[in-house]
Amino acid sequence: MSEHRVDTVCIIGTGLIGGSLALAIRQAGFCKEIVGAGRTEATLVKAVELGVVDRYDTSISNAAEDADIVVVCVPLGSMHAVFEQINAAEIENTIITDAGSAKQSVIDDAGFVFGAGFRNFVPGHPIAGTEQSGVSAAFPELYQNRRVILTPTENTSVDALEKVRAMWQSAGAEVETMSAEHHDLVLAGTSHLPHLLAFGLVDCLNNLEDVDEIFRFAAGGFRDFTRIASSDPIMWRDICLSNRDQVMMMMRRYSKEMEKIYRALEAGDGEKLREIFERAKQARDAFCG
Amino acid sequence: MSEHRVDTVCIIGTGLIGGSLALAIRQAGFCKEIVGAGRTEATLVKAVELGVVDRYDTSISNAAEDADIVVVCVPLGSMHAVFEQINAAEIENTIITDAGSAKQSVIDDAGFVFGAGFRNFVPGHPIAGTEQSGVSAAFPELYQNRRVILTPTENTSVDALEKVRAMWQSAGAEVETMSAEHHDLVLAGTSHLPHLLAFGLVDCLNNLEDVDEIFRFAAGGFRDFTRIASSDPIMWRDICLSNRDQVMMMMRRYSKEMEKIYRALEAGDGEKLREIFERAKQARDAFCG
Repeated sequence: MSEHRVDTVCIIGTGLIGGSLALAIRQAGFCKEIVGAGRTEATLVKAVELGVVDRYDTSISNAAEDADIVVVCVPLGSMHAVFEQINAAEIENTIITDAGSAKQSVIDDAGFVFGAGFRNFVPGHPIAGTEQSGVSAAFPELYQNRRVILTPTENTSVDALEKVRAMWQSAGAEVETMSAEHHDLVLAGTSHLPHLLAFGLVDCLNNLEDVDEIFRFAAGGFRDFTRIASSDPIMWRDICLSNRDQVMMMMRRYSKEMEKIYRALEAGDGEKLREIFERAKQARDAFCG
Repeated sequence: MSEHRVDTVCIIGTGLIGGSLALAIRQAGFCKEIVGAGRTEATLVKAVELGVVDRYDTSISNAAEDADIVVVCVPLGSMHAVFEQINAAEIENTIITDAGSAKQSVIDDAGFVFGAGFRNFVPGHPIAGTEQSGVSAAFPELYQNRRVILTPTENTSVDALEKVRAMWQSAGAEVETMSAEHHDLVLAGTSHLPHLLAFGLVDCLNNLEDVDEIFRFAAGGFRDFTRIASSDPIMWRDICLSNRDQVMMMMRRYSKEMEKIYRALEAGDGEKLREIFERAKQARDAFCG
């Protein structure tokens, strides 16, 4: 790893994701200095107080200019604007990476701002997080043994890729690469669709009469099932819009699956229901242990 | 409580639910003796070995005949047959209760077998459980501070109701009463529908290509969300069929909700999405803490 160590990392957006990365790479000695940047000065002050970053700059351009690696950890809807501010700086030798949950949309934003031939952009996505958010929720172990997916484009340079890989590895993550298209499909199924289903369930029950009564009798299974419905609404609005085609495709597939279950129930077809439940249980037990 | 203590409790079906009840009421000194009964002798032998029951009888009639309270903890599809075997015994002074997750269907079964005027049947449902099953998974704390819903009919005697209430209270549960209809509606929303959604999601993803790949990138949120898809398929087939009308109604409502989300996504209506997610997050945070 040592050959990939750098002097300065700039974290734009010091919430749970950016803040935890800062804490982890500091602990690992990956860089000499960590600079925070972002929209809200109060958050940056707190990030310094909590020892998450060494200093901050409210100008994203200034913060980016001094850095070897800039990590953009903002909601997907803010990527484009942040890239433009980064681009206002001298960034010829700066590696830029992100932590967005959808990848093609970020690649499009980066291509639009930095130009299609820009070699120092490494699209990335750490598969980690909790339903908490904000710098106070950050902790250095967040990425331990978690996967980080990098989706280099045909223009991404090997040097930039390897530096970003080393950064995440120093934070304890297992780094894999794949195409942005494949990433977006896989995440639509295992993350984006489940979040929509959970938000939808809670909103659906919330519209019923006697709603207090209904939630009062919810058991542990319901708590687990709906935990992701406590996630940040803005972040998830952006994820859904950014990965719209894949998410809509998954929603259509899911709707067909539920239609199949509904028809079996309507027909009183217990054998069909048992078969679906059994198949699901086996798959879940096999993959999630 | 002491006035409600009894000599013998018979548990039919010594799995997670019945076994944990046996362990809890024994610890509380609610009765002098616990007799197990059920279909599979190996399970009953194990229940004696684990100290869950004092003795067992493979004849449900014989086991029931000696008991003050008979608790039927079998899948909903087996209730009718078990009631018939109980009814073959002298049960004039025996209180019969159950732990089924849907209540109207059990009341119908009991009415059919014991006669509509039978006063000693107390329909019940402990809102507790894990995705585990079987007597080895049983533990005495399962019902501590959990809710148990009793849905007495117009024929249920006060004495029978109070004895069953005392039994669950001795196991640490908070007991409430409501109508079977209301119970079935509430549980369709908070338990039966979520289980169907989870089974459906895993089965849907399992049908995709590269399924191993897809599950490999599932994060903690997915694990929590799909935990209930590891539940027992037979039990859930029976629950869905037994509470079919309410479950189908909830599925239709849910389908409309997801249609609304799909349309907002299709229209790129971020404000609508944010509004739904925000409402869901607030409701979930308020009710589940």
